[in-house]
Amino acid sequence: MTSSGEDNLIGRFFAPLAGPDGLGLKDDAARIACAPAHDLVITCDALVAGVHFFPEDPPDAIAAKALRVNLSDLAAKGARPRGFVLALALPVSSSGHEDWLASFCEGLRADIAAYDCALLGGDTVSTPGPLMVSITAFGLVPSGCMVARTGARADDLLYVSGTIGDGALGLALCLGKRQPFGGCEYLLERYLRPQPRLSLAAALLDHASGAMDISDGLVGDLTKMMRASGVSAEVDLAAVPLSHAAMAAGGALLPWRDVALTGGDDYEILASVPPAQAAAFESAAQQAGVAVTRIGRVVAGQGEPVFRDKDGTVVKFQRGSFSHF
Amino acid sequence: MTSSGEDNLIGRFFAPLAGPDGLGLKDDAARIACAPAHDLVITCDALVAGVHFFPEDPPDAIAAKALRVNLSDLAAKGARPRGFVLALALPVSSSGHEDWLASFCEGLRADIAAYDCALLGGDTVSTPGPLMVSITAFGLVPSGCMVARTGARADDLLYVSGTIGDGALGLALCLGKRQPFGGCEYLLERYLRPQPRLSLAAALLDHASGAMDISDGLVGDLTKMMRASGVSAEVDLAAVPLSHAAMAAGGALLPWRDVALTGGDDYEILASVPPAQAAAFESAAQQAGVAVTRIGRVVAGQGEPVFRDKDGTVVKFQRGSFSHF
Repeated sequence: MTSSGEDNLIGRFFAPLAGPDGLGLKDDAARIACAPAHDLVITCDALVAGVHFFPEDPPDAIAAKALRVNLSDLAAKGARPRGFVLALALPVSSSGHEDWLASFCEGLRADIAAYDCALLGGDTVSTPGPLMVSITAFGLVPSGCMVARTGARADDLLYVSGTIGDGALGLALCLGKRQPFGGCEYLLERYLRPQPRLSLAAALLDHASGAMDISDGLVGDLTKMMRASGVSAEVDLAAVPLSHAAMAAGGALLPWRDVALTGGDDYEILASVPPAQAAAFESAAQQAGVAVTRIGRVVAGQGEPVFRDKDGTVVKFQRGSFSHF
Repeated sequence: MTSSGEDNLIGRFFAPLAGPDGLGLKDDAARIACAPAHDLVITCDALVAGVHFFPEDPPDAIAAKALRVNLSDLAAKGARPRGFVLALALPVSSSGHEDWLASFCEGLRADIAAYDCALLGGDTVSTPGPLMVSITAFGLVPSGCMVARTGARADDLLYVSGTIGDGALGLALCLGKRQPFGGCEYLLERYLRPQPRLSLAAALLDHASGAMDISDGLVGDLTKMMRASGVSAEVDLAAVPLSHAAMAAGGALLPWRDVALTGGDDYEILASVPPAQAAAFESAAQQAGVAVTRIGRVVAGQGEPVFRDKDGTVVKFQRGSFSHF
């Protein structure tokens, strides 16, 4: 009896990616030693072809995105990556599995090295449906120090990392909702390959009262974080940082600012920082090489956050964020 | 702006199941304190409707199976359950989500209580394909003590828990491959609701040199464990424990013994135990209330394990186990 196709596939493609804790993927399980005086942060994000990415996207980009959306969550919690497990459902109908898998695993390999996050284990199954990639990622924070979504307090300042809306505009481009223009490659790349802000983790750990990663649109995610913290917020929309490419995408065709502010796929960080910590946070972010921009402040109360235009007009959004249901 | 359907769904159905480490599922992540002098055992198994279960199976049984196949892996590693995360892909086409989800969550709730394994977090997404449930489960073992698949050594005795083949015969019944008979309900139930052998974990930790759970058929999984350990084995097929219902299923219609020995869905434990530990292992298993049966022994060498009939004839199996590819 020869070994099964499943074992061959794991041995050929995935075992070379496993770190020592993955035990060469020869066991049913991985094991990691508990780090004294630390908490393990656990996050899980699943991506489905045709929902979260295009089936024809480059396989290495699909792998990178599946891992990075999880690393983005770890970054927002102030955590250092420790490893991940991968559940992969491969369509039974797909021919040329091997080339696809080789590229997918090359994408994983590059990110495992870049982010020092080992493959620990997983499961590979067949499906009559679309490709699905589900990753559970692990990070470490000093005991009791995970930066919570529930930590924002009245008077804290609200910051975002990077620029907002690039991913959503990149997706709009993919969907053909606008003509190509100078800078569109940048937006497409931001949609295809998000950059987890792991280098901001230490600054968040040291100075933020609360944080989350922005994956479903700034407006909706900010509302979610304020609700979870039992507070409200005032946001200055003119302060929200936009890339040159996003501004170049501005035109009459689409409510492009709505797309930028309520579309998903930013994978930037939203953080609340007590005023006394603001200077230190800005300085730590600068040292980490991550741009952070103050966009508003937390206010007491349970009301919906208020978003104001540069002339002070209150702006209402029909749809704050992406939802599956 | 109201909260999204996704948040409502999580708040209504899943948040009530979350333990304190799940932070009410209000955060992007869970966190668990590292247990001093322990390793965290991590296992991941994904189930797809139409592949691993029937779409029309009771939702509470689907939930129970998805969790229990992971708990079965933890049991084989000698681990005590600590918690799990759940990635759930719900078909966009499915109507009556709410009733389905209520039943699914009731199945989870009952098992969370029965096995003391908290829901820590997860992700809920929509899919144009079939329902998929991917669970990553966590357990604890004393540092360095995880029972490995690679630990079998020559002269160790091989044991299995419970009875072998009930799940595979239950599946054959579901597929209409035989007529119903007395005892068929038992086999169907064994297929639908596997029983993770968590009560055997301590005995494995104390006495076994190696172990794995039997999920893809005894013949194939035993071959896999011997290969991972760099050894071979001699197995006495007449010693393999079969339930009364499995024997009642015996007939002329099917090679029923082949189904029992090479079909999947046992979720029993295969363990290698050094001869000097055998009496203590048997006694510990008895105290734990789990039947264990000696079915053969480990031998030196790299050859395929040898399976002998009661008259000493060597039996060859066409197909040792289930494989997705």
